[in-house]
Amino acid sequence: MRTFTQVRVVGAGLIGTSMALGLKGAGYQIAIEDEDPRAEEIAQSLIGQVGEGPNPEVVVIATPISSISTLVKGFATRYPQAIVMDIGGLKSEVVAEIEQFPDISSRFCATHPMAGREISGALAARGDLFEGRIWIYTPTINSSELAVASALEIINALGGKKVILSAKEHDQAIAGISHLPQIMSSLLSATLIDISDRDIGLAGQGLKDVSRLAASNSELWSELLHANSSAVVEFLNILSKHLEDLSTSLQNDDLRKTQEILALGRENHARIPGKHGGKKRDYWYLPIIIADKPGQLAKIFDACALVAANVEDLTIEHTPGQDSGLVTLALSKVDSEKVFAQLIKDGWRVHPPRESIG
Amino acid sequence: MRTFTQVRVVGAGLIGTSMALGLKGAGYQIAIEDEDPRAEEIAQSLIGQVGEGPNPEVVVIATPISSISTLVKGFATRYPQAIVMDIGGLKSEVVAEIEQFPDISSRFCATHPMAGREISGALAARGDLFEGRIWIYTPTINSSELAVASALEIINALGGKKVILSAKEHDQAIAGISHLPQIMSSLLSATLIDISDRDIGLAGQGLKDVSRLAASNSELWSELLHANSSAVVEFLNILSKHLEDLSTSLQNDDLRKTQEILALGRENHARIPGKHGGKKRDYWYLPIIIADKPGQLAKIFDACALVAANVEDLTIEHTPGQDSGLVTLALSKVDSEKVFAQLIKDGWRVHPPRESIG
Repeated sequence: MRTFTQVRVVGAGLIGTSMALGLKGAGYQIAIEDEDPRAEEIAQSLIGQVGEGPNPEVVVIATPISSISTLVKGFATRYPQAIVMDIGGLKSEVVAEIEQFPDISSRFCATHPMAGREISGALAARGDLFEGRIWIYTPTINSSELAVASALEIINALGGKKVILSAKEHDQAIAGISHLPQIMSSLLSATLIDISDRDIGLAGQGLKDVSRLAASNSELWSELLHANSSAVVEFLNILSKHLEDLSTSLQNDDLRKTQEILALGRENHARIPGKHGGKKRDYWYLPIIIADKPGQLAKIFDACALVAANVEDLTIEHTPGQDSGLVTLALSKVDSEKVFAQLIKDGWRVHPPRESIG
Repeated sequence: MRTFTQVRVVGAGLIGTSMALGLKGAGYQIAIEDEDPRAEEIAQSLIGQVGEGPNPEVVVIATPISSISTLVKGFATRYPQAIVMDIGGLKSEVVAEIEQFPDISSRFCATHPMAGREISGALAARGDLFEGRIWIYTPTINSSELAVASALEIINALGGKKVILSAKEHDQAIAGISHLPQIMSSLLSATLIDISDRDIGLAGQGLKDVSRLAASNSELWSELLHANSSAVVEFLNILSKHLEDLSTSLQNDDLRKTQEILALGRENHARIPGKHGGKKRDYWYLPIIIADKPGQLAKIFDACALVAANVEDLTIEHTPGQDSGLVTLALSKVDSEKVFAQLIKDGWRVHPPRESIG
C-alpha cells in the first residue's frame, strides 16, 4: 500500500535511475535531478519526466558518498515536510554527521541496497535492479517512525530484502564481505603486471574468477575504501599477518604451517553462502561436451525440461583454440540422474553426475 | 597415427585414470597401477584391465610431485626400452634430478596438463578431461626425438594443446597464473574467519568468486607451493609491497595512491584472457528475469536457437529467499539484439543489451 506519492531522486546514476524507474513502475510519481545536465536529461527522459516536479514527500539521495551528508541537510531544509533517505555504500560518517542536526535526523533513514557492481550510469539502469537483493537500512538515533516506515515502503516497492544494521555493524560487515574481496582481486591483478603475455595466456578459470573484480571503477572504490579505512585496515592487518606467515613457512620449508593456513581458508570457505543466501547446497554436477554453435544449450535445456529437472546453476567453459566447450550443470542429486539418463538417450557426450565440480 | 601401443600409467588419481580412459578410447592398450590397492582396483575396473599387462613402450608417471623423480628412475630401469613421461604440476626439480642420469633423461620428457582443479580420485576421472586444455611439455637437456615424439603423441591422442616451455619458464608462469590466485583465495577466506554468520550471509557474488579456490585440497596445494617456493615467494614479495602501500595510503588518507594501486590492477586485468585463450572478447550482456522452476532456461535457449544466436557465456544469479533469478547471457552485439527482440516478443522480462555485465 502506498502511504505517499511524490518522490524526488537526487542523483541520476545507476542506483538513482534504477530506483526512479522501479518506483514509477510501482505507481509513485517521480522526479529525478542530477548536477550533470546530461545525466539528468537521460534519466528524466527514461522516466518520462516533464518539468520540475511537485514538492516531494520523500527525497532519495543517490549520489557518491562524499556528497551525501551535505545533500541530505540541503534537501531536508528545502523540503521541511519531507522524509529523506540515502543509498550510500557506507553509513557511519553520514549518520554521525546527520545526527548532529536532530531536526533533520528525525526525518532521515540511511539505507544501502546490495546491488550494482561493475556497472554505472543512468543508461545501465533497470527498475528491477533491487528485486530480491539485500537492502540494509540504518535508522538514526532519533529517526521517526514515519521516516523508517517510508524508507521501508520504498525498499518493499522495489522488491528489496530488508536487513536492519547499525551504522558500525554495516560498515564492519561491508569491509569484510565487499571491500576485502575487491582489494584481493585488485592486488592479485596488480601483482601480475610484469608477467609476460605468453604466461598470462596460459591462465585458466581460477585466475579469471579471482581477478574479476579488478575490473571495477578505481575512483569509486578508492573513495569507498578511504571512507571505511579503519575497518578495512583491520582486515588488511589480519591479511598481512597471514601473508607473512605463509611467506615465512614457504621460505623455511615449514610444510605443516602452510597446510594450516590453507586449511583455515578451506574451513572458512564452507561458511560462504551459495545462492538463495543460505548455506551452500549439495549440488551434483553433470559435465557435458558441446559444440560451440547455436542451439546446443537449447537442446540440453529441452532435455532438462522434458524430465522436469531444475537447473540450479551452470558453467560454460570453452577451450583455447577449439570450437567445443564443456557445460557443467548443477542439479539436485535426483535431477542429475534424470538428466544424465535423458542426455545419454539423446546421444550427448555426458559424464556421470559427480559431487564436486571439476 | 599410433607409433606405439602399450602404455602403462603409474598412479590412479584423477589425471592418471583420465589419461588411461582417454588413451584406451584412442586405441592404446593400457595398464594402470597404484600403490593404493583400492585406487588401483577402481581404475583397472574402469578401463577393464585384467592381469598385469605386458611390458610398456611408454610409461606415464602420474603421482604427486614428491614421488615423481624416484618413480621415473625406477620405471626407466625396470623397462629399459620404454619412454617415460610425467604429468606433475612442477618441472624444475624433477627435470634437474633426472638429468643427473643421462641414460634415463634421454628417454624422458616432462609434461604438465592444465586440467583438474578442485577434484580428485579415480572415480572422478573422464577420458576427455584434457580435450582442448593446454598441455605444457618440457624436454630434458638430452631427451631423444623418440621421447619427445612419444609424449606429443599422447598429448595429441588426448586432445591437449601443446605448449613447450623450459622447466624454469613453466614453474615461473605457474607461480603467477595458478599458485598466486590459489593463495589469494585461501588468504581471503582465512582472513574472514572471525566475521559473524550474519555478516557472511550478506555476501554477494564478488566474495563467492574470489574465494572459490579456497575450497581446494590443502595438502596437495601445500606440496605444490613448497616445491615452487622461490617463484611463489617472489610474487608474494610484490604482493606484500602492494598490500603495505595500500594499507599506508588508507591510513594516511592518500586517495591518489590508493587509486593508483587499484588502477594498476584494473589495467592489468584487461590482459587476462577470456574464453578461447585469446584476448577478452567484447560481449554484450542481456539480463533476463526468470522464475526458479524447470523449463525456464530451455525456453530462453529455444529463443536463442530460433534466431540462430550463439550464447558465448551465461551466468545465473539467484536472490536470497526468493524463487526468482537473473540470467545474464553473453552474446555478440548482433546476436544480443536479435535475442532481445525475440525475448521481448515472447513476453520475457528482459533488459536491453549492455556492454558491461552487472
